[in-house]
Amino acid sequence: MSQYDVVVIGAGPGGYVAAIRAAQLGFKTACVDAGVNKAGDAPALGGTCLNVGCIPSKALLQSSEHVHAALHDFGAHGITVSAVHFDAAKMIERKDQIVTKLTGGIKFLFQKNKVDSLFGRGSFVGKNGDFWQIQVDNKGEKSTIEAKHIIVATGSSPRQLPALVDIDNEIVLDNEGALNLTSVPAKLGVIGSGVIGLEMGSVWKRVGSEVTILEAAPTFMAAADQQIAKEAFKYFTKEQGLDIKLGVKIKQINRAKNSVTVEYEVNGESFSDTYDKLIIAIGRVPNTDGLNAEGVGLNKDERGFIVVDEDCRTNLPNVWAIGDVVRGPMLAHKASDEGVAVAERIAGQKPHLDFNCIPWVIYTDPEIAWVGQTEEQLQAAGIEYKKGTSGFGANGRALGMGKAKGTVKILSCAKTDRVLGVHMIGPMVSELVAEAVMAMEFKASSEDIARIVHAHPSLSEVVHEAALAVDKRALHG
Amino acid sequence: MSQYDVVVIGAGPGGYVAAIRAAQLGFKTACVDAGVNKAGDAPALGGTCLNVGCIPSKALLQSSEHVHAALHDFGAHGITVSAVHFDAAKMIERKDQIVTKLTGGIKFLFQKNKVDSLFGRGSFVGKNGDFWQIQVDNKGEKSTIEAKHIIVATGSSPRQLPALVDIDNEIVLDNEGALNLTSVPAKLGVIGSGVIGLEMGSVWKRVGSEVTILEAAPTFMAAADQQIAKEAFKYFTKEQGLDIKLGVKIKQINRAKNSVTVEYEVNGESFSDTYDKLIIAIGRVPNTDGLNAEGVGLNKDERGFIVVDEDCRTNLPNVWAIGDVVRGPMLAHKASDEGVAVAERIAGQKPHLDFNCIPWVIYTDPEIAWVGQTEEQLQAAGIEYKKGTSGFGANGRALGMGKAKGTVKILSCAKTDRVLGVHMIGPMVSELVAEAVMAMEFKASSEDIARIVHAHPSLSEVVHEAALAVDKRALHG
Repeated sequence: MSQYDVVVIGAGPGGYVAAIRAAQLGFKTACVDAGVNKAGDAPALGGTCLNVGCIPSKALLQSSEHVHAALHDFGAHGITVSAVHFDAAKMIERKDQIVTKLTGGIKFLFQKNKVDSLFGRGSFVGKNGDFWQIQVDNKGEKSTIEAKHIIVATGSSPRQLPALVDIDNEIVLDNEGALNLTSVPAKLGVIGSGVIGLEMGSVWKRVGSEVTILEAAPTFMAAADQQIAKEAFKYFTKEQGLDIKLGVKIKQINRAKNSVTVEYEVNGESFSDTYDKLIIAIGRVPNTDGLNAEGVGLNKDERGFIVVDEDCRTNLPNVWAIGDVVRGPMLAHKASDEGVAVAERIAGQKPHLDFNCIPWVIYTDPEIAWVGQTEEQLQAAGIEYKKGTSGFGANGRALGMGKAKGTVKILSCAKTDRVLGVHMIGPMVSELVAEAVMAMEFKASSEDIARIVHAHPSLSEVVHEAALAVDKRALHG
Repeated sequence: MSQYDVVVIGAGPGGYVAAIRAAQLGFKTACVDAGVNKAGDAPALGGTCLNVGCIPSKALLQSSEHVHAALHDFGAHGITVSAVHFDAAKMIERKDQIVTKLTGGIKFLFQKNKVDSLFGRGSFVGKNGDFWQIQVDNKGEKSTIEAKHIIVATGSSPRQLPALVDIDNEIVLDNEGALNLTSVPAKLGVIGSGVIGLEMGSVWKRVGSEVTILEAAPTFMAAADQQIAKEAFKYFTKEQGLDIKLGVKIKQINRAKNSVTVEYEVNGESFSDTYDKLIIAIGRVPNTDGLNAEGVGLNKDERGFIVVDEDCRTNLPNVWAIGDVVRGPMLAHKASDEGVAVAERIAGQKPHLDFNCIPWVIYTDPEIAWVGQTEEQLQAAGIEYKKGTSGFGANGRALGMGKAKGTVKILSCAKTDRVLGVHMIGPMVSELVAEAVMAMEFKASSEDIARIVHAHPSLSEVVHEAALAVDKRALHG
C-alpha cells in the first residue's frame, strides 16, 4: 500500500496548490481528484475554478467585450465594420482551449514537483496507526492509500432548486451549462444576482440576449459596499439593459421542450416569464458527500461545511480542510493561500492569513473589487471612519480607454487614518485592488497612499485621488 | 499691481498641481501659462502632457488597439466583421475631445481652488523688497505681478535636428504632429526609439503604416532592465513587424514636397529610405528661453536645466523649479509630486519624494513598466541581489484577454530580501506597477509580496509568482 506524508483530496485551486507546496517542502505527496474534462473522456485537474468557473468565465467575458466594442464603441474611434457576425460555438471553443491549456498545466506542475496525481474519488476509510487511510474510487475500481496528513479540498457545487426544477444543462443551467451555450438565447433568465449570475448575465447580454435576473434578496449585492452596489445597479440596469428584479419569490418553474417558464412574485404581485434558457446561480454548497466524514467522525456544521479553526485544523488529528468546503469566502485565491498555509503548518512553519486582506472581484463591466470593510460593516461595528471618493470620469487613461465610469472609495479610521476598506467600481479595478491589498497588509494610512507616486496617466491615479480626498485635499476633485 | 504669495510659471502637470496645492494650503496663488489649444484660438492649460503628450497618445493607442483587435484577434473569439474601415481623422477628433475635456477640467479646478489663471508668457523682472516681479506677456500686452514665492514649471520641448531638417509638422513631425495625422501614412519613419517613438510607431503600425525606427544608440531601451528590453525588442520587431534599427548615424535628411528621405549609416554601411512622414523623437530639452533667468541670476546647468537641490530649491531665495525643467526623469507624475512637495515646503511642511520609487511606464503592447533599479544598475553598483521571474503565458486572466505574453521580474537584496526593483512587460503592467511601488515605499521584502493574497484570476498573480520565484518556490513556474 502506498504511503504518503500528505494526501490532498481535490485538485481545485486549494488542493492542487496545497499539494505543490507540500511537495516543495519535501513531503511525499499525492493529490486525489475525480474531475473529468468537458468531453468526459479524460481526467481534468483544476476543479470548478479552472474547468467551469473563474477561468472560462473570463474567457467569455473578453470575447463578449470584443463583440460589444465592435457593435457600440468602434464608431467613436473612427472604425466602421460593415457587418458583425458572432459565432457563440467558436467563442466556447476558444474558452475550451484555454481551459485545456491550464488544466494540462497543473498536470505538468504535478510531475515537475513530484506530486502523485491519482484519479478517483477520495474518501476516508479509517486509521492505521499514525496513518489515515484514504480510499480512491476510480469508477468502481477501488484502492487504498495512506498518509500522515490529509488535506480536504473538495470544494463546492452549485446550489440547486430540487423542489422546483432539475438542472439539465440543456434548458435549465448551472454555471457549467451557462459556460457552454453554443448559440445566443433570445431570452435568458437568471435566478440569483451573485457573481456568477452577474458575470454570465453580462456575457450573454453583450452578445445579444435579453436578460432578466431574478434575485430573492431585497438588496442588490448585499455583501458589497452599498455605494458601489448602487452605482453598479445603475450601470447594469439603466445603461446596459439588464433587467434585475429584487425581492423575488420564485413560486414555480415549468420546463417545456424548448423553453422554461418561471412564475414569481414581487411585492405580492405575480409574474410569469418564459425564457429560452434559465441559469440557476443561487450560491454554492460544500462538497462533503461521499467523503465518509461521518464514518471517521469528521465534524461538519449545520450547513454542511467542515468545521475548522482559523488554521484550517479539523477536529481530527492531522486532518485539515481548506477552501470552499470550510468557512469563509468561496474564493479561489482564499483556497490557494489556505492550501499554502496548511502545507507550511505541516512543515512546522507559522504562516498567517489575514482574512480582512483578501480581495473580492466581480468581473462585470465596469469591474467591481474591494478589500477590507464596507461602510455598512463599520457602521454596524460602531467604528468611526473617514472616507474619500474619486471618480474615473476625469481620469485621462480611463477616457483614453473609453471606460471613464466608476468610483474608488477609501475608508480609514477616524483616529489613526489606517485604511479599513477600499471599494472600487471601474475599469480594471480587478488589478487596482492589488495596490489596496498591499497597503492594507502594511497597515497603511490613507496619507501613505496619498504620498506615494502613481504613474500618469494610469487608472491607479483614481486610487491616489481617493486617498487625497480622505484628507479633503483631492487635487482633481 | 497684483501681489501673490505664490506664482507658478507653467500649467503643465507640475505647475497646475503645484498651484492647486498652494491654494489649498491657503496661499494666494496665480498660475501663468501661454499654452493654446490646437486651433490656436483659446488658452489651453495642461502643458505638453495633456495637450500633445501622455493623454492624447493614450487615446490613439486605444483606438489603434481596437483596429488591431478587429483585424487580427476577432477571429479567435468567433467574431467576423466583413470589412474594417478606419478613419484616422475621426480617431484624431476623438482624441481632441478628450484633450478638450481635460484641459477644461483644469480651468474648472483653478476656479474651484481660487487659483488666478493668467494667460501669457511668464518671465522674471527682478525683486521688489521680498517680492519677485514676474512679467506676463500676453502676445505683446505686458503686465507685471509680484509674489513671495515663484515656482518655475516651464517643462520641456522636443529636441530638434536643426542642422539636418526643420520640423514642419506636415511631413517632418514632432510629438504634436505625430498626434495629428489625419490619414495613415503608407511609410512612416521615426528617429528615436524612446517612449514617444515607440508609442507613436505602435499606433501607426497598428492602423497600417509600414514603420521604421532609427535609433542612434547601440542598445535598445538602455534605461530599462535589459532582460525586459530584449523581450520587448522581440515582440516589436519579430511579432509586430516594427523595423527597428540600432546604432544608426543619420547623415542627411531631405524633405521633398510629399515625402522625406533619410540617409543614414549602420555599422559603416549606407542606407537611404524615403518615408511619407518622419517623426523626430530624440528626447526633450528644458524650456528656459524667455524666462530671463540670466537677468536675475537663476543658475542653469550646461544642458540648460535649472539647477535645484533635492527639494527643488534654486540658487535664488524663494524661487523653486520642478518637473522637466530640472534634473530627474521627465515624467508627468514626477513633476506633479514635486509640485505638491514644493507647495507644502512653502507652507513649512516636510514632504519627501523618493526618486527610487517613481514608476516608469511605456504604453506599447505589451506595456512596459518598472520601479527601482535594473539588474544592470545593481551590477554596476556591486549590490548582490536575488531575482525571481514569472511569465504571463500561463496566467488565466491573460489567456482570457488574449494577451498572455510578458514577464515580471523582481530583484531583491541578497542579504535582506528587500525589494530593489520590479520590472515588467505584459498586459496592463502600467497598472500592476502600482502594487510594486506601494511595496517598495514600505520597504517590502519579496517574501512580503509572496505572502499577500492576490485575486484570482488576475494579472497581478504574475507579480505574486515572481515574488515566490525569488525564493525558488514558485507555485506555477
